[in-house]
Amino acid sequence: MNKEELKNILLQVQSSALGVDEALDQIKEMPYHNLEYARIDYHRELRNGFPEVIYSPGKSLEQIQGIVTDMLKRTDSNILASRADQSVYEAILQVTDQAIYYKEARAVVVKRKEYAVSKDYIAVVTAGTSDIPVAEEAAVTAEVMGNQVKRLYDVGVAGIHRLLDNVDVINNAKVVIVIAGMEGALASVVGGLTDKPVLAVPTSIGYGANFGGISALLGMLTSCANGIGVLNIDNGFGAACLASKINHI
Amino acid sequence: MNKEELKNILLQVQSSALGVDEALDQIKEMPYHNLEYARIDYHRELRNGFPEVIYSPGKSLEQIQGIVTDMLKRTDSNILASRADQSVYEAILQVTDQAIYYKEARAVVVKRKEYAVSKDYIAVVTAGTSDIPVAEEAAVTAEVMGNQVKRLYDVGVAGIHRLLDNVDVINNAKVVIVIAGMEGALASVVGGLTDKPVLAVPTSIGYGANFGGISALLGMLTSCANGIGVLNIDNGFGAACLASKINHI
Amino acid sequence: MNKEELKNILLQVQSSALGVDEALDQIKEMPYHNLEYARIDYHRELRNGFPEVIYSPGKSLEQIQGIVTDMLKRTDSNILASRADQSVYEAILQVTDQAIYYKEARAVVVKRKEYAVSKDYIAVVTAGTSDIPVAEEAAVTAEVMGNQVKRLYDVGVAGIHRLLDNVDVINNAKVVIVIAGMEGALASVVGGLTDKPVLAVPTSIGYGANFGGISALLGMLTSCANGIGVLNIDNGFGAACLASKINHI
Amino acid sequence: MNKEELKNILLQVQSSALGVDEALDQIKEMPYHNLEYARIDYHRELRNGFPEVIYSPGKSLEQIQGIVTDMLKRTDSNILASRADQSVYEAILQVTDQAIYYKEARAVVVKRKEYAVSKDYIAVVTAGTSDIPVAEEAAVTAEVMGNQVKRLYDVGVAGIHRLLDNVDVINNAKVVIVIAGMEGALASVVGGLTDKPVLAVPTSIGYGANFGGISALLGMLTSCANGIGVLNIDNGFGAACLASKINHI
Amino acid sequence: MNKEELKNILLQVQSSALGVDEALDQIKEMPYHNLEYARIDYHRELRNGFPEVIYSPGKSLEQIQGIVTDMLKRTDSNILASRADQSVYEAILQVTDQAIYYKEARAVVVKRKEYAVSKDYIAVVTAGTSDIPVAEEAAVTAEVMGNQVKRLYDVGVAGIHRLLDNVDVINNAKVVIVIAGMEGALASVVGGLTDKPVLAVPTSIGYGANFGGISALLGMLTSCANGIGVLNIDNGFGAACLASKINHI
Amino acid sequence: MNKEELKNILLQVQSSALGVDEALDQIKEMPYHNLEYARIDYHRELRNGFPEVIYSPGKSLEQIQGIVTDMLKRTDSNILASRADQSVYEAILQVTDQAIYYKEARAVVVKRKEYAVSKDYIAVVTAGTSDIPVAEEAAVTAEVMGNQVKRLYDVGVAGIHRLLDNVDVINNAKVVIVIAGMEGALASVVGGLTDKPVLAVPTSIGYGANFGGISALLGMLTSCANGIGVLNIDNGFGAACLASKINHI
Amino acid sequence: MNKEELKNILLQVQSSALGVDEALDQIKEMPYHNLEYARIDYHRELRNGFPEVIYSPGKSLEQIQGIVTDMLKRTDSNILASRADQSVYEAILQVTDQAIYYKEARAVVVKRKEYAVSKDYIAVVTAGTSDIPVAEEAAVTAEVMGNQVKRLYDVGVAGIHRLLDNVDVINNAKVVIVIAGMEGALASVVGGLTDKPVLAVPTSIGYGANFGGISALLGMLTSCANGIGVLNIDNGFGAACLASKINHI
Amino acid sequence: MNKEELKNILLQVQSSALGVDEALDQIKEMPYHNLEYARIDYHRELRNGFPEVIYSPGKSLEQIQGIVTDMLKRTDSNILASRADQSVYEAILQVTDQAIYYKEARAVVVKRKEYAVSKDYIAVVTAGTSDIPVAEEAAVTAEVMGNQVKRLYDVGVAGIHRLLDNVDVINNAKVVIVIAGMEGALASVVGGLTDKPVLAVPTSIGYGANFGGISALLGMLTSCANGIGVLNIDNGFGAACLASKINHI
Repeated sequence: MNKEELKNILLQVQSSALGVDEALDQIKEMPYHNLEYARIDYHRELRNGFPEVIYSPGKSLEQIQGIVTDMLKRTDSNILASRADQSVYEAILQVTDQAIYYKEARAVVVKRKEYAVSKDYIAVVTAGTSDIPVAEEAAVTAEVMGNQVKRLYDVGVAGIHRLLDNVDVINNAKVVIVIAGMEGALASVVGGLTDKPVLAVPTSIGYGANFGGISALLGMLTSCANGIGVLNIDNGFGAACLASKINHI
Repeated sequence: MNKEELKNILLQVQSSALGVDEALDQIKEMPYHNLEYARIDYHRELRNGFPEVIYSPGKSLEQIQGIVTDMLKRTDSNILASRADQSVYEAILQVTDQAIYYKEARAVVVKRKEYAVSKDYIAVVTAGTSDIPVAEEAAVTAEVMGNQVKRLYDVGVAGIHRLLDNVDVINNAKVVIVIAGMEGALASVVGGLTDKPVLAVPTSIGYGANFGGISALLGMLTSCANGIGVLNIDNGFGAACLASKINHI
Repeated sequence: MNKEELKNILLQVQSSALGVDEALDQIKEMPYHNLEYARIDYHRELRNGFPEVIYSPGKSLEQIQGIVTDMLKRTDSNILASRADQSVYEAILQVTDQAIYYKEARAVVVKRKEYAVSKDYIAVVTAGTSDIPVAEEAAVTAEVMGNQVKRLYDVGVAGIHRLLDNVDVINNAKVVIVIAGMEGALASVVGGLTDKPVLAVPTSIGYGANFGGISALLGMLTSCANGIGVLNIDNGFGAACLASKINHI
Repeated sequence: MNKEELKNILLQVQSSALGVDEALDQIKEMPYHNLEYARIDYHRELRNGFPEVIYSPGKSLEQIQGIVTDMLKRTDSNILASRADQSVYEAILQVTDQAIYYKEARAVVVKRKEYAVSKDYIAVVTAGTSDIPVAEEAAVTAEVMGNQVKRLYDVGVAGIHRLLDNVDVINNAKVVIVIAGMEGALASVVGGLTDKPVLAVPTSIGYGANFGGISALLGMLTSCANGIGVLNIDNGFGAACLASKINHI
Repeated sequence: MNKEELKNILLQVQSSALGVDEALDQIKEMPYHNLEYARIDYHRELRNGFPEVIYSPGKSLEQIQGIVTDMLKRTDSNILASRADQSVYEAILQVTDQAIYYKEARAVVVKRKEYAVSKDYIAVVTAGTSDIPVAEEAAVTAEVMGNQVKRLYDVGVAGIHRLLDNVDVINNAKVVIVIAGMEGALASVVGGLTDKPVLAVPTSIGYGANFGGISALLGMLTSCANGIGVLNIDNGFGAACLASKINHI
Repeated sequence: MNKEELKNILLQVQSSALGVDEALDQIKEMPYHNLEYARIDYHRELRNGFPEVIYSPGKSLEQIQGIVTDMLKRTDSNILASRADQSVYEAILQVTDQAIYYKEARAVVVKRKEYAVSKDYIAVVTAGTSDIPVAEEAAVTAEVMGNQVKRLYDVGVAGIHRLLDNVDVINNAKVVIVIAGMEGALASVVGGLTDKPVLAVPTSIGYGANFGGISALLGMLTSCANGIGVLNIDNGFGAACLASKINHI
Repeated sequence: MNKEELKNILLQVQSSALGVDEALDQIKEMPYHNLEYARIDYHRELRNGFPEVIYSPGKSLEQIQGIVTDMLKRTDSNILASRADQSVYEAILQVTDQAIYYKEARAVVVKRKEYAVSKDYIAVVTAGTSDIPVAEEAAVTAEVMGNQVKRLYDVGVAGIHRLLDNVDVINNAKVVIVIAGMEGALASVVGGLTDKPVLAVPTSIGYGANFGGISALLGMLTSCANGIGVLNIDNGFGAACLASKINHI
Repeated sequence: MNKEELKNILLQVQSSALGVDEALDQIKEMPYHNLEYARIDYHRELRNGFPEVIYSPGKSLEQIQGIVTDMLKRTDSNILASRADQSVYEAILQVTDQAIYYKEARAVVVKRKEYAVSKDYIAVVTAGTSDIPVAEEAAVTAEVMGNQVKRLYDVGVAGIHRLLDNVDVINNAKVVIVIAGMEGALASVVGGLTDKPVLAVPTSIGYGANFGGISALLGMLTSCANGIGVLNIDNGFGAACLASKINHI
């Protein structure tokens, strides 16, 4: 609520066009619903472009069911639960039969209306086959958020012709998500090849000095290609959120 | 060069419309100039939207002068040297009197034509006064790359009304760069308030458990606000590159 | 025992008001009981305001039973076993039927008298739903120690209006415990909003660059809000101990 | 501003007891002053119990002078610049001759009225002589904030009788600040000896595996004494802020 | 494809010795096969001296079967799956009965022709018995790649005569792979004793300050013996690849 | 073999008192037995004061049986397998019925002669009950190596009177082993109280910022008490080896 | 003071053989002198075998002069200031002309009586020439504390015959201090060669993955040679303290 | 000295063809010269293929002069001092006028005979201009050791055509040294393009999350290209040693 809007409300109160209680409501309404263990943020869609997403780890199945039930009642948006395993899916199914489980992406979607499809697409690119689960989390999330997605998997730099051969897919995208584990070099090479915004997701694929994704994370943060936006390790979901915002500009 | 273009060249060779040597040139031309100590990449502007930038640390003043001289000869673009101290500025001045020194931003620009000004603007937001040098690196870089910039400094979360009072500057931007040291919490709060793409730059401002910027870096990577793109510590330059790509979509 | 007290005892010995052995007892009594594998500290309540608490991990069930049995015999205080799983609860139940299991808080209390209730309250605030187990450890511990507690859960900064709307709960508390994972930004925002002592507990909620709670820990230690006292990762118990001391001033 | 206050203002507007513009002022006044490079938070004293403090590193002397000048104009509080070296002191002296330099504490105070003196005192305890600068930062800050302070220096655990002999100073305090480098064991021993709130500040005193204070920091965070509130490495200032809040309860 | 080869093709096109489409094929052929989830790199043998190896972790059994099936069809090379557990072996057995499982080495080989045997040998040396699995990964990989291997196990420096007594095995090798956990000192001692290239593989054998192999890794990287090439922790496979390249010079 | 001994052998060869082959044997005999997967070092007792100990992790049960069998044949010493779980014990029992399992210490001893008992004793001191398994590893190892041991458990600094009350046990020892997790402060306090050599073993007891024993390890390395010898995390065995060497001086 | 002694004093008080004030003195005397900034521990020699040593860093020259002056007055021991640079030496010279500066060892000794010379010696062994300053700190400290020392420098494992050739110096010592940087492998090799207690000091000699001594530190802590006592990085002083205690057994 | 040689000497002693003292000399001769502060290893050339190199840091100029003087007397090899600054060069010049200073490589060579030139060459490749000092250390070291070197500088992956255009230089080498800072991706790309042994040197070029070279180091260790041998950060010297051994096979 900005200054002009506030002045407006006050003017209406002064002119008795608006009662004190109504004004109070408008100024101080609670844009969330309080379940004690969760305060569901129903204004997030307005502020942030997508409804609040349920991050599953650390929540009991009862809590997840309670949140979904509340969202079903108060919105008509699609609902997304991320990092969801089979048990989360089954718990949500007890609440609504509209739930779909994208297993590789570890995502449950309560699909209440068709996903929109954007004109431009987001390219989701992986270095290896083992990076695909993170890529699918990104791709499915982006699709739920109304984006067209093109997948380009297993084009890591150890066989760089596989990448060079598909540069078009990258250069015709509106934004590119690069997903790579080990040393994460793919992000630098893609960043050097295209003028499109590049978002990079390090994965925890690797062992030893990979340290659960640190090698790829540091590599992407210190890339010699300028201006790569880095997400947390294995955070395909976050990359999709940011890519979706850019794609919808 | 894609497949169609290649086929075209080959067809011209077959039909003798193009000589072998000309074809060879077109296919294998060297899109860079070799100074032995540096191979200046003159195709980067085409591929990446902005000419190669001179990263000053670790280069001798002679090398920097050599690179600038070569670029003056071969392009008519503005030239940017980042992380430049006074001595770099003076060295470049010996080569051209068009050099401008943005001291706080540690940037030298050889300004050969006016900066373009975009319709939409990039918001550059800092948590504190001490973060301003990194912010200026971002702002000046973005301006050189043809973007309008709005600066919003010292709105850290310890006095959150300073931020809430200026939400409009953030929400009317096309993309937002948040620059913060210490714990970097500003990125999360801004990320929760806006639907615009948020890029975050951790700074090395702080001491002790800040560990040269690690606390802010980790905080931004693990932000509870979804989809923040993180740059390297103190990397205002990189944030500007990515923001500029997004702003020019 | 301070100097004056010692002088007093010596004067009584000199005047034969006190026998040597009695004096010896008073000066050198053993304020703990030795079970070989544990020396239970029965003076801790005097020195520290609360009886020794049983930290369950690394102790065998037999050792825990032995300690509880000894405490039942020698004190009439309530007994608290922290970080207790179901098996600890059942082992204690074999020794006394006064045991209560606070499952979410992982705490077993042998409740031998009603908890006291303080006039002022401690606010326990969490960023997310997943932080609740640590919050419950803090809340239950504080209650056992005789404090009134108000819980305010899931008010993280990604939807800051949820927090701003409940500032009263924070400002009317005597001391505030903020519990947050990921980047832990909630501690900074609360610290900026209130003049009450703020204690912060980083949680291990998150993944990737969270590194088991390090991102939140470093964020809280380097907070731009001045004077936040930080506890160990997931240490709701410790926060309650310190808050209880402050609340009882 | 809470709900009741807001309702009140609205009622006054409705009854025309308050004009729209006055109401607007009261609701949306800017509780800070914008110097472009800094937004000085004049409501912090109300919210947080002490005026905004100038953290000197990373600010130019001109910026510091500008901030002091503005604060001199708009408040009559004492002004504190922390982490200030000689040059900061001299810069402030050019603006006001009321500046005092506490050299060991690296603090400049613009002393415009006498410091208040609390009835209860804060004990500031150090392990070694080398920890004194951090202790002085804490002690001077606490004194400026209106607290009585007792200093107890060089009572580290390698000669534990030095500590045991002064337990009274600790037990008669309202809150205790323990400052120690190396392994920081003093915090645990003090924490075990007293029922007063203990705040611990690790210092960067030490070498090798001290890693700039990490050994003391981790030691204090994992202390076997329950409920110690830990501050950032070398953060005497923060400890004083928190201790002052507790002391003023 | 180098410049001369390209000129040659172009000359053939000019002289019509080669059709445009054939030329196109030669220049832009796809040297890999796209299975969507994997792009198998069939030119790696030409470029890198050994066919693409299947790194098993993170791939589903179906994906591994698909890759093996495709490789069986398109090449006649031996096929190696590394880091393979029993289930990978059984999955491959369903596709071909030529699979052999080297259990200690965690390697599955589809053996379609005899391994070549080099004239010179690679020495594989371990510090302890517990390092043998990594050593076997190196030894089996090297043998599959056509190298003679000599094993020298359990000659760690705590009983240095065991090593000194076998210096001949080391000095008569063409290249030496040293595999050690804990502090990895064996690499330095071997490096000081021989003029043969020494490759070192730290293992994760150890506990506590070993930190999963970091102690050995850092020890090998900072060895006082000059010129040791270090591989990732537990990366027997990589050591064999490099040793094989050197042995085949 | 030192220079004098060698000269002696050569003189005997010159005088034909010793045949060439005998000399060769004496000079180059193999003081170990080669089982391919292990080279058992039978001279370690001479060089190091105790026979080679079997470190169980990473060895197959067959390998452990093979080593025990070989040692039974070639020596008459007691045999010790450290870090042994129940399955190791049972495997050794199949080879010899003289095996004893010290469960808490995770040690199997093949007891072929009574342990010697030293005149002086080693004190083994722990901070808490949870540290006892590491302490027992130290105590049992020391006893097998012929040392008298006194145990003093659960005397951590959070109740320092428990320690002060038992200072005699420490001061009458010949060498003291201090075992502590969390912040490891007990080592510093003991180190300050006694003139006996103090060896410190950090344990992995704790959570969060304990990081698997790092907090205690760093604390002990940076102790303000001078001259504490630190062992690896949880390495009770190593502490016993060193203490035994000192005790046998 | 133990129980018997205390009883004795009390009996004397009872029998009036001792006055209350004398008893008080005996029980509660202050075994240190309070200079406000330092409490000099004059009982440390009794408890710990050597007078309190002045650790110079972080102390002002005035503080050091004050401490030396006080010690000159109250004891007749030799006085040692460690980590002392030239300015410390000169400051002490102003107080007493008995000061000697051991420059390489960075130690100032106020030599008031001849150093004692032990029958047995401590061997101080270094891997390289660059480790000598730390070795000299150890050697000089040990000599001041009354020990005979033999130095064996530059016998690192990259040329292991240099070490093997001098094994006698090691085996005839009573205790061995091994000082090494880089990977610190010398400690393991010496530990495997001798039955004497081995103390290891990692040095910060090295670069890159040495990380200021971490590689050597971790290497020594995880040594495959059993029972090496490790000191802090560059802590020659501490090694001498512990070696001296062992040598004086 | 191996078994056959030893038998031979013994047989000669038996037959009196060799005196006892001569035998003693041959068996136990000291293959190094003892300067007290250094034991110069004159057999290293035999064992390791190149004379001992003087690592300058941590050595006094007097020590370096002493070592050079001794080597001039006892060998006729070229002498190399690494990591040498101007003062080292001048110190050596005082001893011999044959010293040459390779400034960029920080190397002093006492050139007493022409460098040999190998038939095959070593390729030294850098990602950027700022990596050249490390590359020159590698190149000059390799040249001194008798290798032909080809330099290929500034071909980093942000402009990958610069690299692809020069693949011949890499593929015609016998061994390739890749030198890169930041994320070090060049090593992976080169490793994927060639069948020649690739050695990788991470440099400390970069800032922030580069952490002094860690990002490049981890990236190279976890490279998706198989079998890259990694050297310590900035260790151009070590890479040259290993490359030289391989080149001389």
